[in-house]
Amino acid sequence: MILYNDKIVERRDVAIDIEDRGYQFGDGVYEVIRVYEGQCFFLDEHLDRLERSAKEIRLDWPCSRKDLQHNIEGLIRENQLSDGMVYLQITRGVANRNHLFPADTASVLTGYVRELVRPVEIMEKGIHTKLLDDIRWLRCDIKSLNLLGNVLLKQEAHEDQCKEAILHRDGTVTEGSSTNVFIVKEGKLFTHPATNLILNGITRLHIINLAKKAGVDIIEQPFTIDTLLQADEVFVSSTTMEIVPVVQIDQEIISGGKSGKITKALQKHFEDSIKLLKI
Amino acid sequence: MILYNDKIVERRDVAIDIEDRGYQFGDGVYEVIRVYEGQCFFLDEHLDRLERSAKEIRLDWPCSRKDLQHNIEGLIRENQLSDGMVYLQITRGVANRNHLFPADTASVLTGYVRELVRPVEIMEKGIHTKLLDDIRWLRCDIKSLNLLGNVLLKQEAHEDQCKEAILHRDGTVTEGSSTNVFIVKEGKLFTHPATNLILNGITRLHIINLAKKAGVDIIEQPFTIDTLLQADEVFVSSTTMEIVPVVQIDQEIISGGKSGKITKALQKHFEDSIKLLKI
Repeated sequence: MILYNDKIVERRDVAIDIEDRGYQFGDGVYEVIRVYEGQCFFLDEHLDRLERSAKEIRLDWPCSRKDLQHNIEGLIRENQLSDGMVYLQITRGVANRNHLFPADTASVLTGYVRELVRPVEIMEKGIHTKLLDDIRWLRCDIKSLNLLGNVLLKQEAHEDQCKEAILHRDGTVTEGSSTNVFIVKEGKLFTHPATNLILNGITRLHIINLAKKAGVDIIEQPFTIDTLLQADEVFVSSTTMEIVPVVQIDQEIISGGKSGKITKALQKHFEDSIKLLKI
Repeated sequence: MILYNDKIVERRDVAIDIEDRGYQFGDGVYEVIRVYEGQCFFLDEHLDRLERSAKEIRLDWPCSRKDLQHNIEGLIRENQLSDGMVYLQITRGVANRNHLFPADTASVLTGYVRELVRPVEIMEKGIHTKLLDDIRWLRCDIKSLNLLGNVLLKQEAHEDQCKEAILHRDGTVTEGSSTNVFIVKEGKLFTHPATNLILNGITRLHIINLAKKAGVDIIEQPFTIDTLLQADEVFVSSTTMEIVPVVQIDQEIISGGKSGKITKALQKHFEDSIKLLKI
């Protein structure tokens, strides 16, 4: 069962038009929401960000936020989802192809759930990553459907046996192809500020809060490739990956090839926050 | 009737899946081919570029080029199209959502025709344009479905009563939101070279050839906003707009607010090349 605008319907009953602007222009926005034991993790924050993304590209929602929230819960229930994710996207709808915003076109919302297991092995052992030029557009703060750059970069890393691409613009580290990047240096946590050059991850924001609560200084400030490679610890974060240590970047071993102390501590706090959800 | 992979079918019989990678990632490429009196203009060149775009993102075609060419002709015939365009796109197909290229997924090709009239009024009188920051990604040479930047920029120009956005990166003029930009200075024609920062228009290439044949020096070299604003003539080109003079950029009047001599000469040569097609 999937969500189609304001209704939960059979997947086979939904047909996307060839002139849906999502299909021809990537003219839409999306969210991926984590579900643990049937409960959405940070649902409000994801819907806030969906609202912001839609506003930035002046896209109307095809339903009220309250109805959407209700339908997300229905979708989880009807599909009997325990651990997984909800994918939601909204496009500007169907219109004769023309770059300009169409008049009188209704947005199209689609959503579905999928089972997911927590990536416990890489959360413990860490991942290898590849440094690549950030070729994406200058509005990475919008969670839009224009993801071809992310796709190509992730694929390039993958073909070099790396789990993630760490991106930089002219030597300044921005984020991963589908993650945010954090480093630890002398006990302090650093990450790129939430500018137009990165997607402000919900998990990123959660980690910043967890660090503050744990008394770890968190500094939102751009850093260079050199600083990255000389960091005591590096990790990436996302809704589906949570917190994953980076133990190698190109040929450079990080943190002795193991997860670092602060990374582990933050993972522990993260885990606790999931448990709180279940109470 | 529309083209769906290797068949011409009724539009209502085609349903795009919600997990088509074109819909979720803009993971695909496209072409717009001009048709004059039932004949494709520069079909080979458009298919060459489609092949190149597909190759750059490592996308397989779902059919042979020969079959595609045959089907394009069939599409024009079955829809009794005289003057208009053929829109074609190929996406990486349907797969469980994951940035990485899916294994064993068949590409999805869709195509349709639409009637178009030549924009004769603006070809004569020219258009007003707006200078905007080029916020797009760094692979504008690929004619991909990631067009949200182009959409937002064109819309911004439109809301300022301008027909096109002329884009620049840090003061260097790249191209329009859906056109290439040419300037005339002291009898010479200048346009941005075909790098990763622009889409190498088929009309752009045709104009370069027409200029050479007419003995007009053509220099493919980046130029600044200042050079643009001080040009003797400015025009934009595209498959559907052909050659359109720019008579105003922001508040700056270009060429006395009228089409210039070389622009008009090139339009005449362009017109002649369309007539040749009809013989």
